[in-house]
Amino acid sequence: MLKFYHAPWSRSSSVLWLLEELGVEYELTEIDIRQEGGVPENYRRIQPSKKVPAIEHDGVVITERAAITIYLAEAFPNAGLAPAVGHPMRGPYLSMLVYCDSVFDPALAAKVQGWKYESNHFSFGLADDMVNYIDRILTERPYAAGDRFTAADTQLASSIGYTMQQMKALPERPSFIAYMDRVKDRPANLRAAEKDQEMAIKTPFFQKQFAG
Amino acid sequence: MLKFYHAPWSRSSSVLWLLEELGVEYELTEIDIRQEGGVPENYRRIQPSKKVPAIEHDGVVITERAAITIYLAEAFPNAGLAPAVGHPMRGPYLSMLVYCDSVFDPALAAKVQGWKYESNHFSFGLADDMVNYIDRILTERPYAAGDRFTAADTQLASSIGYTMQQMKALPERPSFIAYMDRVKDRPANLRAAEKDQEMAIKTPFFQKQFAG
Ligand SMILES: N[C@@H](CCC(=O)N[C@@H](CS)C(=O)NCC(=O)O)C(=O)O
Ligand SMILES: N[C@@H](CCC(=O)N[C@@H](CS)C(=O)NCC(=O)O)C(=O)O
Repeated sequence: MLKFYHAPWSRSSSVLWLLEELGVEYELTEIDIRQEGGVPENYRRIQPSKKVPAIEHDGVVITERAAITIYLAEAFPNAGLAPAVGHPMRGPYLSMLVYCDSVFDPALAAKVQGWKYESNHFSFGLADDMVNYIDRILTERPYAAGDRFTAADTQLASSIGYTMQQMKALPERPSFIAYMDRVKDRPANLRAAEKDQEMAIKTPFFQKQFAG
Repeated sequence: MLKFYHAPWSRSSSVLWLLEELGVEYELTEIDIRQEGGVPENYRRIQPSKKVPAIEHDGVVITERAAITIYLAEAFPNAGLAPAVGHPMRGPYLSMLVYCDSVFDPALAAKVQGWKYESNHFSFGLADDMVNYIDRILTERPYAAGDRFTAADTQLASSIGYTMQQMKALPERPSFIAYMDRVKDRPANLRAAEKDQEMAIKTPFFQKQFAG
């Protein structure tokens, strides 16, 4: 039994996409992360910061997007989205998944907030180093971990899509645009986007936005 | 062939500990992260923020502490430090490893810096939520992922040790102290600490500190 805690148009949308790629059945619980008064306290038992995504599989809760992605891709190996242990793509696959959450996200948040920090003095380093690194990787290879699509791409492409196309915080490097073109028409991505939109437009937050 | 890029008394010390737990042979390259003028630019090709740790295995570079830890524990399975796919500890193992880098580190850094942010509005959430979560986990179970020591403990214990005992940024919760007691006398931990100290006291930065 697989449960998925999700909010449309959020970081958990990459997991929705991954679930469509894997073709597995799951029960979706919507968490309205934009509700007035915040997410109810009882959700903290599932996710310690009351964030999405989270999953529950065979009675065990799994949190953190990169961990969920690694977990699902290996638990459902038929789709071939996780390079096997010993394969040369294994290391780059794990590195990119962790990097998206531990560097990409916080470095960009710090930059958007205008938080000043000297040189490199945080575990997430400088946003410009991050942008140049992702640019280098996507210039050297077509996908996040090498020459074929893996579960790391559901996360990297979601991160780039959200921060470049929505937030306009990530610069529009040619390698980013070409990469997004490479993944955008995957059937699972289109299906997930459609499901997400259906959910989003029913939430009070977006209904108010569209009305106003 | 395994290469390890390391700086003593730093985040890569948890990987030094893990390598001792695994009992594998490796070639250590010291990166003096505290040198005047910063780490030379040519190291960026290995680690995009010029940070440690990094490893190179069979010609492939792997970065990000959690990714390195997952990678090494599964590449050298004899030590039994990685719960297998399908084992109920697998999810908690992956979650905790990612959490240490994506939440523990940046949330605490933001707090120490006094960076203000409303409620929960960053991927790493609030430092207090992080402290309460780790406290809850280490009250519910003896080790990071369950009832036995795994590679996730080299990282969680290093994070707690550094931020609670050195930086004094993490509060001294009884569960943290009991946990540190549980792991501190592991032979591999003691060996790693000794090797690390030998290296540290030879670096110009710490020699100056001790002299002054
Ligand atoms: N470190 C978490 C971050 C997840 C995250 O930031 N989720 C956002 C959605 S984009 C959220 O749930 N925000 C709601 C809130 O912060 O209250 C992960 O990687 O899974
Ligand atoms: N996100 C990196 C962070 C590593 C990190 O912060 N390393 C510090 C050592 S504690 C470093 O190399 N600092 C040197 C510098 O920033 O120039 C990881 O998890 O591997």
